[in-house]
Amino acid sequence: MNIFDKLRLKLPLQGACALITSQVNRRYFTDFNSSDGYLLIFENEAFFLVDSRYFEAAKKSVKANVVLLEKAAEQINGLFASHGIQSVYIESDRVTVGELEFMKSKFENVTIDFSETLFKAIRSLRMIKTPDEVKAIKTAQTIAETALLRLLDDGFSYDNTERKLAAKLDYHMKDGSAEVIPQADDISFETILLSGENTSMPHGVPSERSVCDGDALLIDFGAVYEGLHSDMTRTAFINNINDEYIKIWEIVLEAKNLAMAAIKPGIPCNEVDKIARDYITSKGYGDCFGHGLGHSVGLEIHEYPAFNKTCEELLTPGMIMTVEPGIYIPGKFGVRLEDMVVITESGYDNLASMSIMPEFTVKFL
Amino acid sequence: MNIFDKLRLKLPLQGACALITSQVNRRYFTDFNSSDGYLLIFENEAFFLVDSRYFEAAKKSVKANVVLLEKAAEQINGLFASHGIQSVYIESDRVTVGELEFMKSKFENVTIDFSETLFKAIRSLRMIKTPDEVKAIKTAQTIAETALLRLLDDGFSYDNTERKLAAKLDYHMKDGSAEVIPQADDISFETILLSGENTSMPHGVPSERSVCDGDALLIDFGAVYEGLHSDMTRTAFINNINDEYIKIWEIVLEAKNLAMAAIKPGIPCNEVDKIARDYITSKGYGDCFGHGLGHSVGLEIHEYPAFNKTCEELLTPGMIMTVEPGIYIPGKFGVRLEDMVVITESGYDNLASMSIMPEFTVKFL
Repeated sequence: MNIFDKLRLKLPLQGACALITSQVNRRYFTDFNSSDGYLLIFENEAFFLVDSRYFEAAKKSVKANVVLLEKAAEQINGLFASHGIQSVYIESDRVTVGELEFMKSKFENVTIDFSETLFKAIRSLRMIKTPDEVKAIKTAQTIAETALLRLLDDGFSYDNTERKLAAKLDYHMKDGSAEVIPQADDISFETILLSGENTSMPHGVPSERSVCDGDALLIDFGAVYEGLHSDMTRTAFINNINDEYIKIWEIVLEAKNLAMAAIKPGIPCNEVDKIARDYITSKGYGDCFGHGLGHSVGLEIHEYPAFNKTCEELLTPGMIMTVEPGIYIPGKFGVRLEDMVVITESGYDNLASMSIMPEFTVKFL
Repeated sequence: MNIFDKLRLKLPLQGACALITSQVNRRYFTDFNSSDGYLLIFENEAFFLVDSRYFEAAKKSVKANVVLLEKAAEQINGLFASHGIQSVYIESDRVTVGELEFMKSKFENVTIDFSETLFKAIRSLRMIKTPDEVKAIKTAQTIAETALLRLLDDGFSYDNTERKLAAKLDYHMKDGSAEVIPQADDISFETILLSGENTSMPHGVPSERSVCDGDALLIDFGAVYEGLHSDMTRTAFINNINDEYIKIWEIVLEAKNLAMAAIKPGIPCNEVDKIARDYITSKGYGDCFGHGLGHSVGLEIHEYPAFNKTCEELLTPGMIMTVEPGIYIPGKFGVRLEDMVVITESGYDNLASMSIMPEFTVKFL
């Protein structure tokens, strides 16, 4: 069954059209990346309208009727008329208020359905990854891990700032770290590389602080490969460790292990969050874990569903989720440990293969 | 006059509130970058609601009443009530249909104005850059130019692909190219680095093609500094040149020079586009220049206004515009030459200081 039929199962399209205008969802349905264009999915066929920059390439790869985009409103009205369309579903989570007003003024003889119907149908498709998507995310993860190993292997100098090291890590991802490792299309998000007391900021931005021997180091980063994202966090002391740190570090690791042990199809997302949260709370650090336990990842870095207090979605094979508990002690340090898993029939596969250790061994140059 | 007063001049706010929810416009008005939050601008004061991740930092720097965001709808309704608000302007170009429905369901006793009023008021402010913004863009431009010089200075190897060189150029921007050159916050957009016949694709993506001695090379790239973007394109032959290329190259350069000579306050944008387009057409290459002549740049890489066939906005001191004519000959090569200028009282200042030459001198390793 192709992807259009999968959507039609969720959203019957008799006399109706699903109009996809966002870049990410156009890419999801066509496997073709374009900065502009319209995808119209009807009951029995689909049309992809793109301008001259993309037309030739799209014709070769996209499994829909590819049309050269010239006068959008006129062409789209023509397709609505020839397909007897009365109702048009749009992406309520992507289309802006201004764009809707524009559509209302241009589209003739159709009702625009701007409820959450299409948004939720697409979300329920995108949350289950195909084997090809899982494969690309695995490659992205391999790129990221290899880049981190290379960063650590390069050695640090005492005047290496957080920003300098983050820039180098990004380069290792985009450069491809070895002959056998492909280059990332991009980085997943702005790399979070924090040291010393800065690690206590869950969403800190790399600063001009020099990273030194004996510092705590937190690195949260990922690569994009074929449009699909990876996400991983490692936190450790550099060439050193202390008792207070290792105590917190082990609580975070245990919270992660407990949550992961519960992961299998049929479990609600909020239940997994609760396992990690209850454990951290039982150790007295509940107030130091202010974010959700994790989120889904795919064509975007944050996708639905999420491991948090409120998400009741049931885990289903093919979902990819991060598991990332943390404890942040202001002015001292923070620990976050994050792997990414794919839900399987029997439980999960961990997509991260890099070991989790409380100490990074780094040569200072 | 502060930035809130400048908005009030464009959009009187008696009994009304401007509600800013997009990240880029929140940043524009507060000079503070946050992934979430609400900015409410009233007739006499402004409130910035941000969550605990940002609250302390925002309190120190933002020139508005900073409020810890806890229960958004309740807090916002309270502020509407205490300020006697009947009407709320939202950003029609940013707020999604779903977000508007959510606001309608949560906000009490107010009418939501989702016309283009606030969008256009903000656009007219943002299109005139402050001296601080111009300074940051100049720095971004310096970062980008230094990175390109460093890339060329590094030398290429014969197995350097377009993707590898693009990754290295990005690294030079993010690493800061020398002690005196700051690091870029980010790259402006995905770097376009194309070689040989690939240069004929105006929006090509770096490929696995190896860049060789004697190839044409097109590099379109920029850096972000303090949130502000730069944009520049250079096209040249590597260590070589041929008669056909230099002929096209000189037409593009002349088109750029003619357009720039016309730039001064009071000239409509489409007139500047027409000068370059008419010249290229007169030389027989009108069909090979398929995009607009340029666009404004600021907190986003593409801002309003634009040099194209339809934009009638008049040039005004403080606008920053790219000037980037191109001729693309499929299967052969393309040439695009791009500088970025700031409009002044008497004409313009060119923010690009790197010379435009038809040949790059590169050592092959």
